[in-house]
Amino acid sequence: MGITRKKISVIGSGFTGATTALMIAQKELGDVVLVDIPNMEDPTKGKALDMLEASPIQGFDAKITGTANYEDTKDSDLVLITAGIARKPGMSRDDLVNTNAKIMKSVAGEIAKYAPESLIVVLSNPVDAMTYTAFKESGFPKERVIGQSGVLDTGRFRTFIAQELNLSVKDITGFVLGGHGDDMVPLIRYSYAGGIPLEKLISKERLDEIVARTRKGGGEIVGLLGNGSAYYAPAASLTVMAEAILKDQRRVIPAIAYLEGEYGYSDIYLGVPTILGGNGIEDIIELDLTDDEKAALDKSAESVKNVLNVLQ
Amino acid sequence: MGITRKKISVIGSGFTGATTALMIAQKELGDVVLVDIPNMEDPTKGKALDMLEASPIQGFDAKITGTANYEDTKDSDLVLITAGIARKPGMSRDDLVNTNAKIMKSVAGEIAKYAPESLIVVLSNPVDAMTYTAFKESGFPKERVIGQSGVLDTGRFRTFIAQELNLSVKDITGFVLGGHGDDMVPLIRYSYAGGIPLEKLISKERLDEIVARTRKGGGEIVGLLGNGSAYYAPAASLTVMAEAILKDQRRVIPAIAYLEGEYGYSDIYLGVPTILGGNGIEDIIELDLTDDEKAALDKSAESVKNVLNVLQ
Amino acid sequence: MGITRKKISVIGSGFTGATTALMIAQKELGDVVLVDIPNMEDPTKGKALDMLEASPIQGFDAKITGTANYEDTKDSDLVLITAGIARKPGMSRDDLVNTNAKIMKSVAGEIAKYAPESLIVVLSNPVDAMTYTAFKESGFPKERVIGQSGVLDTGRFRTFIAQELNLSVKDITGFVLGGHGDDMVPLIRYSYAGGIPLEKLISKERLDEIVARTRKGGGEIVGLLGNGSAYYAPAASLTVMAEAILKDQRRVIPAIAYLEGEYGYSDIYLGVPTILGGNGIEDIIELDLTDDEKAALDKSAESVKNVLNVLQ
Amino acid sequence: MGITRKKISVIGSGFTGATTALMIAQKELGDVVLVDIPNMEDPTKGKALDMLEASPIQGFDAKITGTANYEDTKDSDLVLITAGIARKPGMSRDDLVNTNAKIMKSVAGEIAKYAPESLIVVLSNPVDAMTYTAFKESGFPKERVIGQSGVLDTGRFRTFIAQELNLSVKDITGFVLGGHGDDMVPLIRYSYAGGIPLEKLISKERLDEIVARTRKGGGEIVGLLGNGSAYYAPAASLTVMAEAILKDQRRVIPAIAYLEGEYGYSDIYLGVPTILGGNGIEDIIELDLTDDEKAALDKSAESVKNVLNVLQ
Repeated sequence: MGITRKKISVIGSGFTGATTALMIAQKELGDVVLVDIPNMEDPTKGKALDMLEASPIQGFDAKITGTANYEDTKDSDLVLITAGIARKPGMSRDDLVNTNAKIMKSVAGEIAKYAPESLIVVLSNPVDAMTYTAFKESGFPKERVIGQSGVLDTGRFRTFIAQELNLSVKDITGFVLGGHGDDMVPLIRYSYAGGIPLEKLISKERLDEIVARTRKGGGEIVGLLGNGSAYYAPAASLTVMAEAILKDQRRVIPAIAYLEGEYGYSDIYLGVPTILGGNGIEDIIELDLTDDEKAALDKSAESVKNVLNVLQ
Repeated sequence: MGITRKKISVIGSGFTGATTALMIAQKELGDVVLVDIPNMEDPTKGKALDMLEASPIQGFDAKITGTANYEDTKDSDLVLITAGIARKPGMSRDDLVNTNAKIMKSVAGEIAKYAPESLIVVLSNPVDAMTYTAFKESGFPKERVIGQSGVLDTGRFRTFIAQELNLSVKDITGFVLGGHGDDMVPLIRYSYAGGIPLEKLISKERLDEIVARTRKGGGEIVGLLGNGSAYYAPAASLTVMAEAILKDQRRVIPAIAYLEGEYGYSDIYLGVPTILGGNGIEDIIELDLTDDEKAALDKSAESVKNVLNVLQ
Repeated sequence: MGITRKKISVIGSGFTGATTALMIAQKELGDVVLVDIPNMEDPTKGKALDMLEASPIQGFDAKITGTANYEDTKDSDLVLITAGIARKPGMSRDDLVNTNAKIMKSVAGEIAKYAPESLIVVLSNPVDAMTYTAFKESGFPKERVIGQSGVLDTGRFRTFIAQELNLSVKDITGFVLGGHGDDMVPLIRYSYAGGIPLEKLISKERLDEIVARTRKGGGEIVGLLGNGSAYYAPAASLTVMAEAILKDQRRVIPAIAYLEGEYGYSDIYLGVPTILGGNGIEDIIELDLTDDEKAALDKSAESVKNVLNVLQ
Repeated sequence: MGITRKKISVIGSGFTGATTALMIAQKELGDVVLVDIPNMEDPTKGKALDMLEASPIQGFDAKITGTANYEDTKDSDLVLITAGIARKPGMSRDDLVNTNAKIMKSVAGEIAKYAPESLIVVLSNPVDAMTYTAFKESGFPKERVIGQSGVLDTGRFRTFIAQELNLSVKDITGFVLGGHGDDMVPLIRYSYAGGIPLEKLISKERLDEIVARTRKGGGEIVGLLGNGSAYYAPAASLTVMAEAILKDQRRVIPAIAYLEGEYGYSDIYLGVPTILGGNGIEDIIELDLTDDEKAALDKSAESVKNVLNVLQ
C-alpha cells in the first residue's frame, strides 16, 4: 500500500538514451534507471550521477541511477530501448540489422524476465524491424510493444514549416504514415498551421522541398555533426510517448504498431496513427488513403518486410 | 516598439554549452545563439538544429541557431561562456591557464564589440581567473561579469545530503564560499534539510565525508565517464543563474563576484553570496566568519591569486 | 539599463480578472497589477495579497498588487480588460451596452494616459463592441487593441470533442470565426482530432449538437452556477493571448481584430484568425469561405454592427 | 493491468476547494472529483466544467468532474477536505466546532466507505480538531490522516520576509510548530534568506512585527475581502502537500500529525515537522526546543485540547 513512483528504464546510455533519461526526470514522470552493457557501466553511472546532481538545481525530483545489471530494472512500468550500434564504414545493411537484432533479443529477454508487466517503446534502428524483434522475443501482447518514428519525423517537419511561415511551432501539426526517413509517407492534406491546411499557405513546390528535407532529416544532422547522429529530437520523441503512456493520456500519436489486418497488412510493425495511453496502443486509427498514398504505404511496408527477411 | 524576446548567446558548443542552450530554450527564457570556432561551425549548427527539432515535440518556443560568426550574437542580453579546453595529459596547469585566458580574451573582445549592453556569466575553467579575464577584457562594469561555481558545488552537496537522509532534493540547501572544488569553503552551519541544520541530522564524521566527496565532485564524474567531464549539472547551474538575471528575480545565489574590499579582499573574483537580478550582481552579502572559515577563505583567495599571477 | 520584468495590468478584480492575474503570475510572465474601482479597493488588495502569499508555496516569482489607482499601471507592457457589469434582471441589452461602454471609455482613457505604449486585450462583454470602444477611446493603433472570444469558444468546443472521442484535449483543435456565443461561426472542416478532420470521426448530427452546445457554452455555466458566470476558461483564454504577446510567439490565434477590408468588412472588430505576437495582431489570415460560412459571418458582422449602433 | 491516473477527490466546492481542484489539475497530478452537498450540486458541476474547459487552453490533461454523490469518489487515492462553514455573526465558537465536526464525521464516513485505501488531508477549520475528527471517524491509520496549517503559515511568513528584504520568495524559508494563526509557534532561528538566518538580516523588532502579521495573516485577508476568507494560498498549500504524497517525494513539510509521545504529547493532532511521502506522514522530526518554544507549544497544544473538549 501507499503511493509509489513510476519506474522507467532506459536501455542504452548513448546520447539519445542519456538525453531521454534527463527529459523523463525533468518532467518528474518517475524514477529512471539508465542501463548499458558491463564495459559501459562506469560512464553510465557517471551520466546518471551528473543528471542527478542537476536535479536540486533544476528543481526536479527523480532518482536517476546508472547500471549494467538488469536486475535493477525489476518491475519497471515502462522500458525505453535506445540500444544498438550505428552502421560503420564497410558494414553491410544486413550485418547491421542482424547485429542490432541480436542486441534487441538480449534486451527483450531481460525485460521479459525482470519487468514482465512493463510497456516497451523502441527507438533502435532499423526501428520497424527492431520493434518486431522486441515483440517476438518478449512475448508481450502487441499493444505493449511500440516503436517510435512518426513523432520525430513530424517534429522535424513542423520545425521546417514553422521556419517557412515564421510562426510558432506550437501551432504547426504534421501527419505521417509508414516507415522512418526515406520510407516516410507524409499526409500533407492532414498537416496544418493553426488548423489551416498547409496546401493553402505554401506552394506545392516548396512543400515538396520541405518533405524531401524531412525525409533526409536524420542525414542532415549526421552530415552536420560529422561524427554521430541526432539525439535531442529523438529523445524528446521518446519522452512524449512515455508521458502519454505514464499519464494515461490517450493521445493521438503516430507510432509503429503491430498490424493484424489494419490498412491491409498483417504480422508487421508499421507507422500508423494510434491512440496511446496507459495500456499502450489502445487503438489504431484507419484512414481512407488516396491511391498515391496507398502505393507509398505499400512501398514502405515492402521495405520493412525486406528488412525482416534479413533477420536470421 | 513592440515586445521582443530576450537573446542569449552561449559560447562553446561542447556538451556543457549545448546542454545549457537546451535548458535555456526549454524554459523559454529567450532565443539562443550557440557559438563556436569556425572549424566547429557545422557540428554547432547540427546540435542547434537537432534541439530546434525537439522544440515542437517538447512544446517549447525558442529559436536556436548555431554559428561561428560573432555578428550573430549582436545585441544579446546575456552571454554564457563555456568555451575553453580541458587539461590534456602532459600539459602544465600554467599552460592550461594561459591557453584558456587567450580564448577568454578573444571571446570577451567579441562580446564587448557586438553585445556591449549584455551581462556575462562565465563557466570556463579555472573559473575565478577566467571571470577576471572576461571582466578586464570586456571593460564591462563589475556587476555585469559573473562567474559560476557555487550553484554547482551546492547542487552536488545537496544531492549527496538528499541521498544520505532519503529526502527530496527540494528541501536540502547548501552554502559555500570561495573557489571551486578543492578550494571550496563549505559553511555547514548554513546548510539545512527542511530548515533544520544538517549538523543536527548527520554526524560530524559523515558530514566531513560528504564535504570531501563534494570537493572532488567534478573529479568523480571525470573518473566515471573516463573520457570527458560533467555537463548536466554545470549546464543546470548556468541556467538557474541565467533565469535569475533574465527574470530579474533578485535571488540569493553563490556566485563569483569582483570584490572591492568585501570580506577583506580587493581586485579579485571570488565565490561569495550574492543577490542576482536584472542588473547582474545587485549586492554581495557579507557574513561574519569563524576563524576557521576565514582561514579557509584566505587560502582559497590565495589560490585564485596564484592562478592570476600565471596570466601573462 | 539592466533587465526588468514585464508589467501586466488586469482591469477588473472579479473572478475572471483575479483568476487571470493568478494564471499570469503562475507562468511568471511578469509582475501583475490588479485594478478595480475605489469602492472595491480593499477586496482587490485582498485578492492580490492572497495570491502573492500563494507564490512561495507554488514556487512562482511575481509581484502581484491590488489597487484602485491607475497611476499604479504606469508603463504597463500589456493591459487585460475584464471590467464591466453583467446584465441584471430587467436591464435592457442597450442599457447594458451603454453602461459597459462608459466603463470601457474610462478604462481606455486611463490606459492611454498611463501606459501609452501598451497593448490591450479586451474580454468585457459584449466583446466586439467593447474592443471597438477601447480602440476608439485609446487612440492606439489597431494592432495593439485586441478582443478575446475565439480562444474561449474553441476551448469549449475542444473539451466537448475530447469527451466525445475519449481523447486528450491536447490533440483536439477547433476553428471559429465571427462573434461570440450565438454569433459564433464554427469552421468544422478546419477542426481536428490528431489532425484528422472531425467530420471523419463524428457524425454530422452529433457534431451539430456539439456546436450547438458550444454556442450556448457560456449560458450552460451560468445556468449551473446559478449566480455568476464562467471565469476559469475565460481567464485561461486571456492568459494564452497574453503569453503569445509577451513571449512574441507569433501564434495562430482566433482573435477579435479591427478589419479594414479583410473578409469584406471595414471599421468593425470581428473574430478572425490572426497571428499574435509582440506587436499584437501581426497579421490577419484570410480564408476562402463557403457560401454558408460567408452568410453566417455576414450575420455575425451584422449583429456586431447592431450593437455598435446602440453606442451613444 | 495498464497504467491509470491517480484520482483525487476534493471535498467542498467553495473557493478553496475549487481553486485546489484547479491547481491539482494544472499540475496533472491526476483526475479530480469535486464534491459538495446535494443543494450545491449544480454550482459544483458548473465550476468543474468551467475548469475542464480551461484545460485545452492551458494545455493540461485532467478529467475534472463535479458531483454531490460520494460514489463518484470511489477508489480515490487522495482526498482533500475543505468542507465546513465559516463562523457567522452571533455564532459561538463551540457551535462552530460542533457544526463542522458533524460535517467532518459525515465526510470521513463516506471516505471510509468509498475510498478505504486513500490518504486524507484536512484543511477545514478548526483544523487540528477537524483532523482529529477525520482520524477517529475514518478509522484510518494515523499516517494517512493529515492536517494542513504550517505550509500556509510559512507561505505568508515567507511572502512578508521577501517583501522586507526585496528578494525572491524562492530563497526564503520559514519554520513553524503548533497550531494555526494565533497559536502558531514560529521558529525564527530556523528561518532563512538564502540560507542566512533571518536574525542576521532583520532586526528583532521588525521580525516580531512580521511574526505578528503572520499570526493574523488569515484575518488580514478576511478584513480586506470584507466578505469571505483567503483561498489562493490555502489551495496552494493543499496542492503542495498533495504533490508530495502523489509523487512520493518525502518532503520535509510542517503538517498536523497525530502524536503518540512526540514532543511530549499524546492523542492529539498538532503541527510538527514531518516527512511527507507516498505513505502520508512517513516520519515526525523531533527538535530540541528552547524553554520559550516549549512553553509556546504547550500553550498551542492546550488550545487544541480545549477545542477537542468541546466536541460532543
